[in-house]
Amino acid sequence: MQPVPPAQLLAALNWRYATKNFDAARRIPDDVWAALEETLVLTPSSFGLQPYRFLVVQDPAMRAKLLTHSWRQKQVVEASHYVVLAARTSMDEAAIDTFLQRTCEVRGVTRESLAGYRGMMTGMLLSAGFQPQVPHWAAHQAYIALGNLMTAAAMLGVDACPMEGLVPADYDKVLGLEGSGFGTVVACALGYRTASDKYATLPKVRFPAGELVKHI
Amino acid sequence: MQPVPPAQLLAALNWRYATKNFDAARRIPDDVWAALEETLVLTPSSFGLQPYRFLVVQDPAMRAKLLTHSWRQKQVVEASHYVVLAARTSMDEAAIDTFLQRTCEVRGVTRESLAGYRGMMTGMLLSAGFQPQVPHWAAHQAYIALGNLMTAAAMLGVDACPMEGLVPADYDKVLGLEGSGFGTVVACALGYRTASDKYATLPKVRFPAGELVKHI
Repeated sequence: MQPVPPAQLLAALNWRYATKNFDAARRIPDDVWAALEETLVLTPSSFGLQPYRFLVVQDPAMRAKLLTHSWRQKQVVEASHYVVLAARTSMDEAAIDTFLQRTCEVRGVTRESLAGYRGMMTGMLLSAGFQPQVPHWAAHQAYIALGNLMTAAAMLGVDACPMEGLVPADYDKVLGLEGSGFGTVVACALGYRTASDKYATLPKVRFPAGELVKHI
Repeated sequence: MQPVPPAQLLAALNWRYATKNFDAARRIPDDVWAALEETLVLTPSSFGLQPYRFLVVQDPAMRAKLLTHSWRQKQVVEASHYVVLAARTSMDEAAIDTFLQRTCEVRGVTRESLAGYRGMMTGMLLSAGFQPQVPHWAAHQAYIALGNLMTAAAMLGVDACPMEGLVPADYDKVLGLEGSGFGTVVACALGYRTASDKYATLPKVRFPAGELVKHI
């Protein structure tokens, strides 16, 4: 593990912007894209439960359908890659047990050794009080993945645009998510900016650091 | 802007884990911490509105108070730095206009030139239908910041632990956020792992990539 110098990190974060015009002719190389998918997989999540799925939509016909449910933002069809982040709409014992089974496989431990962990998860997530919060809790984890993805993309020199301007229910229909236990939360277009995207060179608007960050 | 090789990114993301035991004697150097605060400031957000605040809690007495509202997770007091991410609990015209004023200052444009942008933001965020969603919308942006922060920390070789196990209302009281228009969403402890943290070397549990990522 080789840390990057702070200046290199900040240069990447200052370089990134919400890309409006993607070069539709330029594709993310396979090895770079594979790293971005692995980035999504490696996202930290609550209890490690990974209550999300990532749909990489590359079929042009499917992208054209999604465009009509995305306020006609053309990044949907012009970006090299388009990822829809979906999150669980509910949680049940089966979802928790599937995860615990995976934990046993990966770590070579017994189910019995995870009883305390299971109790903590079911106690919180399946409680009557928390059940209405589950979609929010799951969406939060998807947003961690989005933040992780955008920062990772910038580090790799890949442009990105977060896409909140979409109609989740319509996406769910187009993507066949209805009844799957997962629902569309947000999306992200990735690829490379065109030289003519005027947003690339606009100064970033941020509140002064002294307003955004308070020291206590 | 110097991209990192994909293997370097993945090494950092595999190196990171939700740190349980921080070395309480080891502090993040000032230049590295400054870069992480700048990372938070540079977080992408919906419309660029930055509907969050970041509270860096370094006062030991304040940390001790927060510990009692954090399921006694000792990262709260042992980590080098502790950031509470708060998000707007409501949105009004004043918040939008403050942001537009800042845009004028930073970009040297007139308020009139931003009329369309203003209409888009007020039309969505201040609509009766969306108002109950505002706290969720704002929390989502705070979670982007959290994802950004954790990935940036890993790139810099800084350990982190996302802290969802806290009582937001109690944090708000301790931090004086009540009535401020912002409420605690989540926190993040940052610093350096101890050599004895057994979680550091456990294999990461992730569902197979073929389950988490679907190609369409």
